Parts: sequence; structure tokens; C-alpha cells
Amino acid sequence: MFISEFKIRVRYSETDQMSYVYYGNYAQYYEVGRVEALRSIGTSYKALEDSAIMMPVVQMNTTFKKPARYDDILCIVTKIKKKPDVKMEFFYEIYCNDILINTAETILVFVDKKTMKPCHCPQWFSDLFLEFNLLS
Amino acid sequence: MFISEFKIRVRYSETDQMSYVYYGNYAQYYEVGRVEALRSIGTSYKALEDSAIMMPVVQMNTTFKKPARYDDILCIVTKIKKKPDVKMEFFYEIYCNDILINTAETILVFVDKKTMKPCHCPQWFSDLFLEFNLLS
Amino acid sequence: MFISEFKIRVRYSETDQMSYVYYGNYAQYYEVGRVEALRSIGTSYKALEDSAIMMPVVQMNTTFKKPARYDDILCIVTKIKKKPDVKMEFFYEIYCNDILINTAETILVFVDKKTMKPCHCPQWFSDLFLEFNLLS
Amino acid sequence: MFISEFKIRVRYSETDQMSYVYYGNYAQYYEVGRVEALRSIGTSYKALEDSAIMMPVVQMNTTFKKPARYDDILCIVTKIKKKPDVKMEFFYEIYCNDILINTAETILVFVDKKTMKPCHCPQWFSDLFLEFNLLS
Repeated sequence: MFISEFKIRVRYSETDQMSYVYYGNYAQYYEVGRVEALRSIGTSYKALEDSAIMMPVVQMNTTFKKPARYDDILCIVTKIKKKPDVKMEFFYEIYCNDILINTAETILVFVDKKTMKPCHCPQWFSDLFLEFNLLS
Repeated sequence: MFISEFKIRVRYSETDQMSYVYYGNYAQYYEVGRVEALRSIGTSYKALEDSAIMMPVVQMNTTFKKPARYDDILCIVTKIKKKPDVKMEFFYEIYCNDILINTAETILVFVDKKTMKPCHCPQWFSDLFLEFNLLS
Repeated sequence: MFISEFKIRVRYSETDQMSYVYYGNYAQYYEVGRVEALRSIGTSYKALEDSAIMMPVVQMNTTFKKPARYDDILCIVTKIKKKPDVKMEFFYEIYCNDILINTAETILVFVDKKTMKPCHCPQWFSDLFLEFNLLS
Repeated sequence: MFISEFKIRVRYSETDQMSYVYYGNYAQYYEVGRVEALRSIGTSYKALEDSAIMMPVVQMNTTFKKPARYDDILCIVTKIKKKPDVKMEFFYEIYCNDILINTAETILVFVDKKTMKPCHCPQWFSDLFLEFNLLS
């Protein structure tokens, strides 16, 4: 399993009148979590798009345990448990002051930008995960 | 089961560079869907908040089947299957040109704004659902 | 001068913890205002992009007179005072319950999507404004 | 004049289908710029709100010189030229790879959260600016 951590600070724009982070804005945090996870293994989502592959999200499940508030520093823990193939799963835990406030998982698929059809992930991308103890 | 429909048009701001609606923005569409569902049964989420009750989302599961694009008119079908008690579930189907592009469900809880503790939904709110053939 | 009106309802996602619409979200309202203004004269911004022209915003000035709040219905009045050439100006007034709460202006330029260089607006687009009493 | 710098990375969610940062999202960057400017002089916007003062934006002027793109690292330079009184002005320059891509200014006012009326900025807040060489 590969684990990456990244910290972000809640922006005022991300709150709503409940004084909580709006529930739809967590998707941005997951995006930052997985983008920085990819960066920490030596690539980037931008590099993937530049090579004419894009990764739309096809599934997202999220559980809101505690609210996040303005100016909070959130620690986004992103986990990759399996080597990517035609899809890639990411698991997220968000902590605020060491308290788990949110868990989520997303499934993304690989799409060839030229044909706009689903495809297998590029070999160079898949190889990046060889050095981590991934189960499959 | 109570079913409500509401149409919205995709804004440019809601797209991302994939030329799709950003996956995090669907949460706004669900919000509009359930808010308009409540309005169609004679109340509003605003009325609920004005009575010192708020409804944070505690769970969201969403499946992205097809992309939505700029200027598309989306039909948000919102379903309520059970009378609210301490929580309330909403089910969503989003159609674009009569094609189902997204399904989701959200669970919201009732919170007393004075104590900031979970509470049962107000009687007047629960009573609004009596006239619909709800199972429980 | 060409004047167009369009109504939108404030979403929960658009508020912040001040219980006002977040100041950055008005840009979306202006976008909706000008897009619907174009639609009302028989074209659409989408048609323009489909013809390989895009219109980035180069200038925005906005004055926030009164706050907008959750569930408010806002009337966006969009004015076009001059025929577009290499740029196009839009003026906005936003009313809530007939009270003027916001004024703004934006300047957009025409960009050829193939060359990514500024260009003159297409003749067919410019011609749409002939029938309105525009000063220049 | 007091000058503060802060770097942020453009999120995918902040782009639109033009592959540029959506023009409305710069307001978030200005917010981050001024919030971090306040933090660098030893206070925070959160502290101000906790003391029952809030600062809505009443004016924003912004000039978009060059686009910002996904994954770009932006340097937000925030300038404060005058000591706050009943209002406070911030000036922004955003650089991408040392190229100036955006300039803006915002005017914010102080509002007493209890009375919801405009007020003078708190003395403790104003005093923070004494040590900087501010012109007035």
C-alpha cells in the first residue's frame, strides 16, 4: 500500500452559511490528495494529461464524520492499495487536529484523449508502482 | 415514494479542462434537487434553517456514468423513499437529453442549531410527508 | 442599448460563513447574465466556441452594495451598449427584491482557438447586433 | 507599504473548459493573499471574526493579463498601502513563472457582527500596522 500525506488550509470560499466546509468542496480536497500522491511517486496528473490520457472519476463514496471549518489545517491521507490497470482507486482520510473527520474513496478510469474511449493505463505509469508493496 | 424533477443548465464555471462538469460540482446539483423537492411539497430548506434546524450531509455516494458538458440542460430527478426521522435520505438521477448520466444518494441528519446536537426532525416537517405513499 | 434579464436562485453552495453569497461567486452570475443575453438575441456562447472562437475575460470591475443571501431570487440585468469588435463589454445590475445589490462590468476579448491569438469577432456574430439601436 | 507573498498551486477544479483558471476563481486567490498577509503580521482574519468583526468586500477591480493553467504555481503578492480605518484596501499582483498575469484591488469594510452595521476597525488591529512604514 502506498500512503501520501498533504496539508491544506480551508479557504473562506469553501465554507457555507452553516460555517462548515460545504460538502461538495471535499471533492477538491480528494483531487489535491491524489494529485500530490502521484507527485510524491515521481510523476504528475499533468504529465498524464500531457501524454493524452485523462482520468475522469466514475465513482465517489464519502462519509462526513465531523465538520471542517474556516482556517482549519486539514491533513489529507491518500492511499493506493492496488496497481492501476483500466481503473485506479484512491482512498482518503482527512484529519483535522489529529481527529478523523472524513473518509472517502474514488474510482477513476483511464481515457484516451484522442479516441475518447477507455484504455489501459500507460506502462510507464503502471511501472511507477512496482517499487511499492502493492498486492496486485 | 415522492418524486420531484428540476432542470438546470450547466454553467461555464462548472466545467473543467476535460470539458466535462467537474465531478465535485454534482454535489451542488443534488443540493438544488433536494431543495426544490422540499419546495414542491410546500416547505423549503430555508424555512427549516429559519426554525433553527440545519441538515448537514453525512454520506454521499455517487456514480458518474456519462459526462455532462457546458450549456447542457440537466434534469435532476430527486426521490424520497422514507419519511424523515433523525435522518433523511435523498436519491438522485440526473438525465441529459433523456440519457441517465449520474446517480447518487445522500444522507442528511437533523441538527439543532442552538445545541449543535443531532435531533429528530420537527413534527411539522415530518407531517408534510404524510400525504405521500411513503413506506415507513 | 440591448438589455436582457435573467433570474437565478442563490444556492447553498454559493454562500459563505458570513451567510452572504461569497464575493467570488458573482462572476458566475455575470457569466449566466451574458450567456442568456446572447441566447436572447438568437445565438449562444456555446455556438461561438463551437466555431473556434473563445472569449476570455480581461477586465472585471464590481461593486457590492448589499449582500445576497441563500434562496434569494436574483434578477440579473445585462446591458450591451456597443457592437462587439475585437472586444465586447457587458454591464450588469443585480437586483434582489427590486433592490439594486450589485453592479459590474466585464470586458471580454475574442480569441481564435486555433492560433490562440486575439481576433476580431466573427461577422455573423457582429451582425446579430445590427437590429438593436447600438451607438457604434 | 506592507508586502506579503504566498504561493498556491492551481487545482483542477479551478480550471474551465478553456483550460484556463476560471475568471471567478481569482477572487479565492485574493482571499488567500490577504488572509496570509494578515497572518504574516501576527493576526488572522479568523481572529477578527472571532472578535465579532467581519469584513465583506465592497469593491473588486481585476485585470487578467495572461491565463493561469492547471498545476501552475502562482505567487500572490499582496500589498497594503494605508492603515485600515472604516475600510481596508488590498492590492494584488499574481505571478506565474515570474510573469505578471493578474493585478487586482479590493476594498473591504469592517462590520460589527452584533449590530450588522459598518464600524471602525478595532484598535488592536489598527495598531498592528504601526510598525510598518505606512503613509497614512
